[in-house]
Amino acid sequence: MTLHSAAASLAEFDRFPDSPGAPVTGAGADALGERSVRLTPKYAGRARDVRVRWALYGAADAPLVIVQGGISADRHVATHADRTGWWDAQVGAGRAIDTVRCRVLSIDWLERADLGDALAVGSEDQADALAALLDALGVRQALAFVGASYGAMVGLAFAARHPARLGRLVAIAGAHRAHPLSIAVRNLQREIVRLGARFGDAAAGLDLARRLAMTTYRGEREFAERCAAAPAFDGARFRFGEEAWLQAAGARFVARCGAERFLALSESIDLHALAPEAVRVPTTLVGIASDRVVPLADLCELQRRCGAAASLHVIDSRYGHDAFLKEPAQIEALLREALPTLGA
Amino acid sequence: MTLHSAAASLAEFDRFPDSPGAPVTGAGADALGERSVRLTPKYAGRARDVRVRWALYGAADAPLVIVQGGISADRHVATHADRTGWWDAQVGAGRAIDTVRCRVLSIDWLERADLGDALAVGSEDQADALAALLDALGVRQALAFVGASYGAMVGLAFAARHPARLGRLVAIAGAHRAHPLSIAVRNLQREIVRLGARFGDAAAGLDLARRLAMTTYRGEREFAERCAAAPAFDGARFRFGEEAWLQAAGARFVARCGAERFLALSESIDLHALAPEAVRVPTTLVGIASDRVVPLADLCELQRRCGAAASLHVIDSRYGHDAFLKEPAQIEALLREALPTLGA
Repeated sequence: MTLHSAAASLAEFDRFPDSPGAPVTGAGADALGERSVRLTPKYAGRARDVRVRWALYGAADAPLVIVQGGISADRHVATHADRTGWWDAQVGAGRAIDTVRCRVLSIDWLERADLGDALAVGSEDQADALAALLDALGVRQALAFVGASYGAMVGLAFAARHPARLGRLVAIAGAHRAHPLSIAVRNLQREIVRLGARFGDAAAGLDLARRLAMTTYRGEREFAERCAAAPAFDGARFRFGEEAWLQAAGARFVARCGAERFLALSESIDLHALAPEAVRVPTTLVGIASDRVVPLADLCELQRRCGAAASLHVIDSRYGHDAFLKEPAQIEALLREALPTLGA
Repeated sequence: MTLHSAAASLAEFDRFPDSPGAPVTGAGADALGERSVRLTPKYAGRARDVRVRWALYGAADAPLVIVQGGISADRHVATHADRTGWWDAQVGAGRAIDTVRCRVLSIDWLERADLGDALAVGSEDQADALAALLDALGVRQALAFVGASYGAMVGLAFAARHPARLGRLVAIAGAHRAHPLSIAVRNLQREIVRLGARFGDAAAGLDLARRLAMTTYRGEREFAERCAAAPAFDGARFRFGEEAWLQAAGARFVARCGAERFLALSESIDLHALAPEAVRVPTTLVGIASDRVVPLADLCELQRRCGAAASLHVIDSRYGHDAFLKEPAQIEALLREALPTLGA
């Protein structure tokens, strides 16, 4: 048994019946569950028990890899039973993160309500929750933490706070800080949600906030291509080429994300700030040239100042920040290079 | 008397008492007034009389120069009596647009209410109103049209529709079309205003829309510099470094611009679209490398396809789109080069 696979069996992990329901166990060794962990949230004075909703995929007795996505992602990284995973392109049998060769852990992001009286949710709180789950699993060191967007920020916080627990960090489209211009735009997204909420319609605000976020996630070229249609008068006002697309994106988001969750996680991105020197784990950084949310310059600074060996790889894409989802072939190649023992 | 100064005297221009009040005449030959002009708005079926609020500055018997700014600018381009001009840096005695050597005409933008039942306001309508004022002034050809932002778009529309009426166009930070990504973000600004209006508080929406606009007008570097302060909890939520600045900008805008005006002029930018080949007037284009509202690539295309000789000059600035206001020395040098007969 290697260091990475020094894991308690799933049965051991789940023997503490602290979950309201028993873990939902699906095909193979995949499992979903909840458990309480002890945390002192960054924006609260004292320790408390926090419930964490986790998922495990793949080989039980194999090196553990933590995988986390953006603020609108959840623990369903891979398809499990009849539920599709949001990152099936990278996580699964035969994929770059091969569930035959490793065990994948992911959590649903902690929200403000999960942390009791904490004033806000820190990326550090998410990292500490994952470290506590490693304890519960009996895993001394995860082979890797693969995080994208907010998940990359949490991975950096994990590497800074629990360096001995991690073999390698792969941080995609996330840096040691949020860029001030991105903070300003996200803060306005939250103000728009609050404007709606003030009039009893937070969903209407959330819809517009998500559309605004989309204008920052995607590349200029994509907009130019999507908006070729001339504006058309609909009886009340002119409709522009990109509107139907953005409206659909806003509606989909409102259907799956509550306003409070969005407010807390959006704010958590903006509060994220750590010294690159504190990241004392070998790190692979992945940036996207067209990313207007996480400028390449910030990843260059992170690479230069990183407290351990760090390499920076740059993806060329028309999709901006969302290239971590929309460029699966490029991401796969980088993951296979960064984590050669992990892929099929 | 040259072609350019073949102008009726101010007294002639004002002899038609179609203004509710007589023109307000200040120091020297400066004057403000209103008059009706006959227009067929682009988004209406038939001609109508439209009231235009105009201003004239400087030498009465001198070449005429039209000067127009962005959608939040007005006809007060230069200081007149006790009212400060928004572009005193460029327009005035001894400035690049020297009011001792030329006569400056500017109008308040037409709004939707000015156009009766028109569905929207076209940049072409503004151009036609200016051409009608040239008729009223007896000016066959203006020496130059200097437009910035929306004013540049209107200048391009003027050059396309009335090429014989113009000696040279100087278009600063405005192109033959609005960029699709900029359209998307402005369209969201209008949706935010409508969200507020739906609940009886259009001003609250306008405030947020203006703050959002500011995040697009200014450069990344400026945000990085303005937001050095760490976020601070105010008892309800965290406040970020740039908030006070953006809040003040939103409040100032709400105090001086109504929601209907903003909706019409913002939409007018997005509806603006003309073939560069139609611009058959010698043109000086000025772009700003850090401008995220009007990407340099669009100005390059305009220069390449322009129907007359066109040169493109690029300003380096931390201020993004707003460099046309915030980099007076660079703008002055370019104006003096483009319009050598005009400056002191």
